[in-house]
Amino acid sequence: MSQSRKMTCHIHLKKGVLDPQGVTIKQALENLGYDDVLEVRSSKVFTLTFREDTDGDLTLRAQEICRKLLANPVIEQFTVEEG
Amino acid sequence: MSQSRKMTCHIHLKKGVLDPQGVTIKQALENLGYDDVLEVRSSKVFTLTFREDTDGDLTLRAQEICRKLLANPVIEQFTVEEG
Repeated sequence: MSQSRKMTCHIHLKKGVLDPQGVTIKQALENLGYDDVLEVRSSKVFTLTFREDTDGDLTLRAQEICRKLLANPVIEQFTVEEG
Repeated sequence: MSQSRKMTCHIHLKKGVLDPQGVTIKQALENLGYDDVLEVRSSKVFTLTFREDTDGDLTLRAQEICRKLLANPVIEQFTVEEG
């Protein structure tokens, strides 16, 4: 049961949006000799632990939290999953 | 085939390590009225796209990249998966 009280929010940049962190890591990898890496994309994950007695659909609640706080709708997309 | 040329690296803080970003988000959620969230933990995901003709085991290669560049072994752990 406690497993189902956790929600995982994945936040990633929309396709086509420049990912400066990814570009920097790709360059660092090249400098380290990893020239077989073509692209690096970064994203963020937030795991929310809800109270056991939280009412309502946790997926909807987590999506609302992503929209209101975690994701920047201009450049980011999000997905939400249980656990 | 091109699917198998991507590796996803999940980097998360070790258990017990303070997550300032998570704490800040939890406080912000409280201020927004979401007092049913007990804890927020943040983590990072990097998707590496390898050249089609990369030799060797990509999982091992991605793990090496995590150890050498992406993860801080003192406070972070990582997992690697295909795709």
